[in-house]
Amino acid sequence: MRWAILAAVLLVAVVGPPAIADEPAAPEASPLAAATEALQTNLNIVWTCVAAFLVFFMQAGFAMVETGFTRAKNTVNILMKNLMDFSIGTIAFFCIGFGLMFGESNGLSGTTLFGLKGIVGNDWQFTFLIFQTVFAATAATIVSGAMAERTKFIGYLAYSFVISLVIYPVFGHWVWGGGWLAEMGFCDFAGSTVVHSMGGWLALAGAIVLGPRLGKYGPDGKAKAIPGHNIPLAALGVFILWFGWFGFNPGSTVVGDGSIGRIAVTTNIAAAMGAIAAMVTVWLMTGKPDGSMTLNGALAGLVAVTAPCATITPMGALWIGLVAGVLVVFAVNFIDRVLKVDDPVGAISVHGVCGAWGTLSCGLFNAQSTLGIGEVNGGLFYGGGFGQLITQAIGVGTAFAWAFVLGLILFVTIKKTIGLRVTGDEELKGLDIGEHGMEGYSGFQIFNG
Amino acid sequence: MRWAILAAVLLVAVVGPPAIADEPAAPEASPLAAATEALQTNLNIVWTCVAAFLVFFMQAGFAMVETGFTRAKNTVNILMKNLMDFSIGTIAFFCIGFGLMFGESNGLSGTTLFGLKGIVGNDWQFTFLIFQTVFAATAATIVSGAMAERTKFIGYLAYSFVISLVIYPVFGHWVWGGGWLAEMGFCDFAGSTVVHSMGGWLALAGAIVLGPRLGKYGPDGKAKAIPGHNIPLAALGVFILWFGWFGFNPGSTVVGDGSIGRIAVTTNIAAAMGAIAAMVTVWLMTGKPDGSMTLNGALAGLVAVTAPCATITPMGALWIGLVAGVLVVFAVNFIDRVLKVDDPVGAISVHGVCGAWGTLSCGLFNAQSTLGIGEVNGGLFYGGGFGQLITQAIGVGTAFAWAFVLGLILFVTIKKTIGLRVTGDEELKGLDIGEHGMEGYSGFQIFNG
Amino acid sequence: MRWAILAAVLLVAVVGPPAIADEPAAPEASPLAAATEALQTNLNIVWTCVAAFLVFFMQAGFAMVETGFTRAKNTVNILMKNLMDFSIGTIAFFCIGFGLMFGESNGLSGTTLFGLKGIVGNDWQFTFLIFQTVFAATAATIVSGAMAERTKFIGYLAYSFVISLVIYPVFGHWVWGGGWLAEMGFCDFAGSTVVHSMGGWLALAGAIVLGPRLGKYGPDGKAKAIPGHNIPLAALGVFILWFGWFGFNPGSTVVGDGSIGRIAVTTNIAAAMGAIAAMVTVWLMTGKPDGSMTLNGALAGLVAVTAPCATITPMGALWIGLVAGVLVVFAVNFIDRVLKVDDPVGAISVHGVCGAWGTLSCGLFNAQSTLGIGEVNGGLFYGGGFGQLITQAIGVGTAFAWAFVLGLILFVTIKKTIGLRVTGDEELKGLDIGEHGMEGYSGFQIFNG
Repeated sequence: MRWAILAAVLLVAVVGPPAIADEPAAPEASPLAAATEALQTNLNIVWTCVAAFLVFFMQAGFAMVETGFTRAKNTVNILMKNLMDFSIGTIAFFCIGFGLMFGESNGLSGTTLFGLKGIVGNDWQFTFLIFQTVFAATAATIVSGAMAERTKFIGYLAYSFVISLVIYPVFGHWVWGGGWLAEMGFCDFAGSTVVHSMGGWLALAGAIVLGPRLGKYGPDGKAKAIPGHNIPLAALGVFILWFGWFGFNPGSTVVGDGSIGRIAVTTNIAAAMGAIAAMVTVWLMTGKPDGSMTLNGALAGLVAVTAPCATITPMGALWIGLVAGVLVVFAVNFIDRVLKVDDPVGAISVHGVCGAWGTLSCGLFNAQSTLGIGEVNGGLFYGGGFGQLITQAIGVGTAFAWAFVLGLILFVTIKKTIGLRVTGDEELKGLDIGEHGMEGYSGFQIFNG
Repeated sequence: MRWAILAAVLLVAVVGPPAIADEPAAPEASPLAAATEALQTNLNIVWTCVAAFLVFFMQAGFAMVETGFTRAKNTVNILMKNLMDFSIGTIAFFCIGFGLMFGESNGLSGTTLFGLKGIVGNDWQFTFLIFQTVFAATAATIVSGAMAERTKFIGYLAYSFVISLVIYPVFGHWVWGGGWLAEMGFCDFAGSTVVHSMGGWLALAGAIVLGPRLGKYGPDGKAKAIPGHNIPLAALGVFILWFGWFGFNPGSTVVGDGSIGRIAVTTNIAAAMGAIAAMVTVWLMTGKPDGSMTLNGALAGLVAVTAPCATITPMGALWIGLVAGVLVVFAVNFIDRVLKVDDPVGAISVHGVCGAWGTLSCGLFNAQSTLGIGEVNGGLFYGGGFGQLITQAIGVGTAFAWAFVLGLILFVTIKKTIGLRVTGDEELKGLDIGEHGMEGYSGFQIFNG
Repeated sequence: MRWAILAAVLLVAVVGPPAIADEPAAPEASPLAAATEALQTNLNIVWTCVAAFLVFFMQAGFAMVETGFTRAKNTVNILMKNLMDFSIGTIAFFCIGFGLMFGESNGLSGTTLFGLKGIVGNDWQFTFLIFQTVFAATAATIVSGAMAERTKFIGYLAYSFVISLVIYPVFGHWVWGGGWLAEMGFCDFAGSTVVHSMGGWLALAGAIVLGPRLGKYGPDGKAKAIPGHNIPLAALGVFILWFGWFGFNPGSTVVGDGSIGRIAVTTNIAAAMGAIAAMVTVWLMTGKPDGSMTLNGALAGLVAVTAPCATITPMGALWIGLVAGVLVVFAVNFIDRVLKVDDPVGAISVHGVCGAWGTLSCGLFNAQSTLGIGEVNGGLFYGGGFGQLITQAIGVGTAFAWAFVLGLILFVTIKKTIGLRVTGDEELKGLDIGEHGMEGYSGFQIFNG
């Protein structure tokens, strides 16, 4: 969508400012037009950088959510995983991933821009790299939650290197780098599929290959709840994620103009409605408004609105968030009790399932003409027919196949080589001592349940 | 004040950009002027959005402050209240509140813009809505602290719906929507009264109707301190609030120009001085520099400077913060020991009392002429006479009457219908188990004092 | 470096906007040029303010890191120190420090701008003050970590007043205020030396004068590890600091243009590489990837890249971060075990040692010509010879001498007058009770190790 504008921006960034000084002005490039372009480019850079910083801060949000929703004996480990997948991902994406995703295409992937080769001065590509780096890291870090409390540290490091190096960038190229899904008209403005489902389906593969935590399923096969140890941290994490999402979605314009306010509105409404819907759903189902599920409801709304946020009305966002909030409750229960896949923080449901829902919702709620930002409404509910919906389904299916299959191959390979799971003894004692030789809460009296 | 500029901005936002392409340029709207306006509008949107995101993040700050200053057994509950008042408030304010506050006026309230009806494209109103939504949510969430540890969850949800739907927006219309207080020249730049006192006086009504926590007052009527369980979280919350306030006050320009630096300076100085003054006051009174009171001192300074931040000198901010820091210590003690109203986090003192002080301080310290931003100094201490001070007092009194009386009616109604307070048994056991069926710190050994 | 641009910006800020209305346009100041300058100035203000807010938020990061890495019984105390050094620093820097640093020079220090005297309207100096205030506060707050768990509260307040009043500003004047180090061509873009080493060497002086915590060194003189009590908070603090550093480094342009994206990239890569390098180093040395050391590795990379961030390639940043990550592990062990200086959080190593390394690295990695932003490469590894390196060494040495000697004088003076260290009894019991009469975690069962 808006990435088309990027091309123009890039052009401006490269051609624009020198135009004032170096070149004889082309007839249409008046001094006013040149100055306007240069200033707007600077504004776009400021905006995109600020948005990138907010998205970076989501790493703290993920770290707090995952820490809070797991047990005290595994806190150092989960924090280290969050820190290191970002760190390793930064280097892998800078050296290789960014080029695969946004370099000149050979049809399958990009082939230039590795290590930002050839980019100098104050080129826009620097700004674009930092923005895309924090996106790549978001996809990577989602997985740590689903694999929490039992994954070997070195195995996780290997995974996080490969996703940022190649799995995420190649799929991203197809959608945002001008690849075949982009050409089909697949709509994923800020990454319900490219980022969130990608992370969610990899998480599913990882959790399956790992197997459940010890004691998660009784001898009768019944799922047992293993409560998180620090709900204030988890709630803080959700607030941080919500805050960061204002960089994630509006920032995906990479242009500082009036659309960012509209996208902030749809993003916020979907999140709010996701929280309300999940709370009501779990309240009706269990008789109590469960805190963990409500927090996940807000995230579900955010994940879902990420694809359609730029092309829907605020009322559309309300419905998309509402469905996401209901869906996440059922998905968590389904994965936990029916599939018997142990996902300690609900990452597969929030990011995988609600990412898919949000991507499909473009085909239902896209309302470009109603909003006055396009010729026709793409969404079925707005008279757009089934075309967009079918394209969305193809993209969603492709993402699942790509991430889940590669994920299975990757995690099985890690399992067979350096190892994916800690010993049962270490798992019982906690990964903090076993993997890192330290405790999360030295001095506190804690039950090691 | 600066909201006058908003009208101009709105005009630009609507008329500006199309002017380049669609309309024959009016004589005065030269291409240069049009381009300048369009760029400044985009800059204003970027700035206002970023400020809105910072103000959103204050929700995390309130959640952490209130969690940290209360007991461990009620953490999930207070977190859920903070999350849900924002979520419910978002929807209520989008559907109804924003229109009541900023729609075309019928004298009492606005009558248009419900659900952003008629707003399309990249209209400035989207940006303005997200900014105003997070303001409305701030007013709503203040109340949860004063009513902590004993309020029924569903009663709280009902309250938060009504404040965002009608109580806050209608008063806000009088000041910021062009209503009668605006016409009188009432000065409340960023909301010491509109947001903070509104929340503070509703909190007072709520705390009175609820009654104190069990064990708060002994058989002899003497107040007993009930210490908060997590001061690091409370301190983190104060830092987050201070950070967010840089969106709250400077962002209220909704214009990206040099005034935002000046407002950031006055805001920061008042906060710093509030912390210092409260620390010194409590040190002199008790012999120790109490941490909770000092943290509240910083907030007191921030609340107080919110009304005058755009019209005072940095030196004025220093005095306003100093008074706020002293005042909050005495107000907390007065409300706790003399009025015997149980406010676990000091919200009434910080937001109600210091909000009133800050609003009055415009009548003492306004120095528009000294600052070179206006014709005359409004403040008594700067030769402005009593006029502004009297207007300020009228606004402060009106806010108290509106919020306190409606608050009493609202909370008594809730009490008589769905219920406002949990049972004594549940209160002793903690609201986390009783209301939400979960614990905040599973695995930790905690005294349930 | 970039501070040269500041002069131009200041000129624009003061002369620019009035130029449109008040003055007959000079021949070269066409209406287009004037409008462009005015808009760019507004953009610079928005950018610099947002960056300042991010740097402010680093206070929360420092507070969380220092709290998390120390013991539960001293949390209120360390939080109060972080809050109060910012508050006192704000007032001292506003009244005196800013003028000493950026006022008109008498050779040694600035002599004007005290209390922003003479600055009115929407002058750029307001924006510059808030940005510089949060920088000054960063230098001040570094010290609290190294002096944690044993310093008398009032002694710490005295220290924090003096550093913000005079120690930091005078040295800062030499580098950023146009003083003699600036004239020599000393390169410290965002403050590896001016801010971080300044804080680090003061911390060293403070830790020496204080002496180690009770029980830190056994009768045999062997260092004993005293583990931090809350690693999630410490990790959150590191994420917050990393986030804030995106204001610290890119914001030091004080100009919103394409360079900020490039600086964000170098900053991020160095941080990531610092974390990786520290993790690998400690893993090789001890057999486990220690969490605390890895977190400090990220900070080490950030501190190191602060000086060169604007003048190096991304690949240069990678090497600078790598060295910093290795260096910090050895520095921590050296200071702890060889020097036997007790620095509970590693502040001296992170800020002092890695700040020195980063400043020197300008002389090795500066690549202005390669980047297309200057005539010649300053760095030895890029063909720049030893000139820059020698200048850097002079600056690093001067900073050490200035901060360490003044620090010794200051802390000894405090020790001999109001007292620097709490009693042994209070230290054992914890400073929270002794100094502040309250607990950090009321209700939790905590070993008082």
